[in-house]
Amino acid sequence: MIKLFYTPHTCALASHIALEEAGAAYELARIDFASNDQRKPEYLAINPRGRVPAMVTDRGILTETPAILAFIAQSFPQAGLAPLDDYFAFARIQAFNNYLCATVHVAHSHRMRGTRWADDASAIAAMQRKVPQSVTECFDLIERDMLRGPWVMGEAYTICDAYLFTLAQWLEADGVDLSALPGVSEHRRLVSQRPATKRAIAAELSPAG
Amino acid sequence: MIKLFYTPHTCALASHIALEEAGAAYELARIDFASNDQRKPEYLAINPRGRVPAMVTDRGILTETPAILAFIAQSFPQAGLAPLDDYFAFARIQAFNNYLCATVHVAHSHRMRGTRWADDASAIAAMQRKVPQSVTECFDLIERDMLRGPWVMGEAYTICDAYLFTLAQWLEADGVDLSALPGVSEHRRLVSQRPATKRAIAAELSPAG
Repeated sequence: MIKLFYTPHTCALASHIALEEAGAAYELARIDFASNDQRKPEYLAINPRGRVPAMVTDRGILTETPAILAFIAQSFPQAGLAPLDDYFAFARIQAFNNYLCATVHVAHSHRMRGTRWADDASAIAAMQRKVPQSVTECFDLIERDMLRGPWVMGEAYTICDAYLFTLAQWLEADGVDLSALPGVSEHRRLVSQRPATKRAIAAELSPAG
Repeated sequence: MIKLFYTPHTCALASHIALEEAGAAYELARIDFASNDQRKPEYLAINPRGRVPAMVTDRGILTETPAILAFIAQSFPQAGLAPLDDYFAFARIQAFNNYLCATVHVAHSHRMRGTRWADDASAIAAMQRKVPQSVTECFDLIERDMLRGPWVMGEAYTICDAYLFTLAQWLEADGVDLSALPGVSEHRRLVSQRPATKRAIAAELSPAG
């Protein structure tokens, strides 16, 4: 049985949505940042980095959203969440998800996680000031060069869509002007209407979630 | 024919080493940061992000090191650069490479690429001051929890080894104390002795490279 460790409003939502899209049997385990659960020994034994998501499988523990998403797509091939028999198409999916992880999410993280990269309060404030610009540049590139429409990879919904939708939840708080991103906005709307997305969000926001 | 766009002393070395390990037929194309090649229209047509590596294949262009490495491993299965038939083991490789890309490389980038995340000179200097600490924390985790030895995944050399070796080139300049990282140091030495590694480095450093 798969067990997904998550925190609401984090990138763990992407893996959660993908599990729902896959029709997987899984359990949820909530890690509460307000209680500092992610730094407790029980959780550090799961993920020494103290971050979410982490996914416990029968084989062991997986971390890192692009790796978890690819594993879900490969483990539930009938769900068609990635082109598994086409190495090039699969690599394009990995490249997109990797861009979200290493560039887009990182740009966003300079708003609330600046202490990872500097200690001075003034430097952290300077990082925060640049977030609207740096995140806008990322999403401009997605809008212009990456999002084929209606889904990221074109006609087929893939794991990329769950991940892009998840990071696009943060655009308003990051100070990004969505009116300049009609494609990204429409993509967010389309993903929000899928039953799997609705189930995942409802579960994360429920008191027992 | 594969064509790898690279710049010496960048993470493109990982893909270059993997192509050598795979026995692939490929060409190199050097992008010179000193001439700002990466911002010229010819290169932006290859990679709109203006970064290296980018790999042109018969099917199209790939970017992002973890995606390129996985594609090389899948395209040249006889080289045994990743466990391709075991989804969990493959995901572990993706997770490791993703950690290198999104956390380790990002920590390092705050030394020379701070303008991505702040505009103030004092903030950029504050980021630079934290690099020895943040990169050390990353490599401590690799040493303690990730590097199984002798190779990253244990007995078999994989694409993870080419990537870890590449980022470990920067440790001295990042101000990391290697004497506290015997496992990482030995891994770097082992990878440096492989013929594929030697060929890739020699090609990058040659005048015509």
